[in-house]
Amino acid sequence: MYTPLMITSDTSERLIESTRELLWERGYVGTSPKAIQQRAGAGQGSMYHHFSGKPDLALAAIRRTAEEMRGKAEEQFGGPGTALERITAYLRRERDVLKGCPVGRLTQDPDVMADPALRAPVDETFVWLRGRLAEVLAEGVARGELSAALDPGVAAATVVAVLQGGYVLARAADSTAPFEQAVDGVLGLLAAQSTAS
Amino acid sequence: MYTPLMITSDTSERLIESTRELLWERGYVGTSPKAIQQRAGAGQGSMYHHFSGKPDLALAAIRRTAEEMRGKAEEQFGGPGTALERITAYLRRERDVLKGCPVGRLTQDPDVMADPALRAPVDETFVWLRGRLAEVLAEGVARGELSAALDPGVAAATVVAVLQGGYVLARAADSTAPFEQAVDGVLGLLAAQSTAS
Repeated sequence: MYTPLMITSDTSERLIESTRELLWERGYVGTSPKAIQQRAGAGQGSMYHHFSGKPDLALAAIRRTAEEMRGKAEEQFGGPGTALERITAYLRRERDVLKGCPVGRLTQDPDVMADPALRAPVDETFVWLRGRLAEVLAEGVARGELSAALDPGVAAATVVAVLQGGYVLARAADSTAPFEQAVDGVLGLLAAQSTAS
Repeated sequence: MYTPLMITSDTSERLIESTRELLWERGYVGTSPKAIQQRAGAGQGSMYHHFSGKPDLALAAIRRTAEEMRGKAEEQFGGPGTALERITAYLRRERDVLKGCPVGRLTQDPDVMADPALRAPVDETFVWLRGRLAEVLAEGVARGELSAALDPGVAAATVVAVLQGGYVLARAADSTAPFEQAVDGVLGLLAAQSTAS
């Protein structure tokens, strides 16, 4: 049975997934429309049928990556345990550390940062992440698990920065060791804020 | 007076400086030999007289940037004050935060990371930075300024990660605010390890 709509939707899907992979591997500047088409096994006409161009396709790809990242983070943030246990689960979750963060790496792409439409989902992701981590930390303070001296908003920015900077250090070293050290360090400093310690 | 040697050296100098600027602004993948020549006001022949190609020129540029970064950091690390005061001076030093770190951004460049010669100065810079920060923290512990429970090596990785991740957050937000929050957060957590607090 020939179902053009399904085939059309598959092509669009393959184009988005190929763009996500290439953005992660090569960045926006390093990703050509031709490379996307080749990886997706789609022709130029097909790509421009579905998307107005590389920025449009990149936007769909970035939005999906950002949505996936929020979904995965929420698995730990909304899980059981104390604030510190949930943040530990989030930071120690299995990650492809040496590939870096698919959202964070976009901040080094000058053409993504120069385009307000492309920067928006990157910005929103980190605003959400910092906000959600601040909520988890504030819960820990409210429940008496963490010292009342802890500023949840400021500590949340530190935790997100450690994760993003940990990727940078791991890539520089071509080893996950400095990522793990950076995470251990911030968890140790947060544990010292625990009223149970 | 016509001094060909000086002119030659000036051209080499302009090529290195132009490459440093372009690597910071556009990254390695986004920097073409032609763009370097244009910014340096040098011809193709002149560029290939001084350097074997883009990788050779990039190596000279990255080495110089790394050396400059170490020199600036040492101004604070080797300065007066307690360990925490020197780390505070380092983290709060005036920086072009929204431009990001000229060394750290290279970790997002797939062609830099894939070339062992180009990755080496990036790796060495962060190894040095973590090692030097660990020394400063270890001095603080040895002098009784900081809790003996603090692991200097691990905490040093956290501090460097906060700085690198702070740049990522600032660029995503197009604002220095999350960088400053991340720095305030880690300094607050380190201050809680201070025996004077």
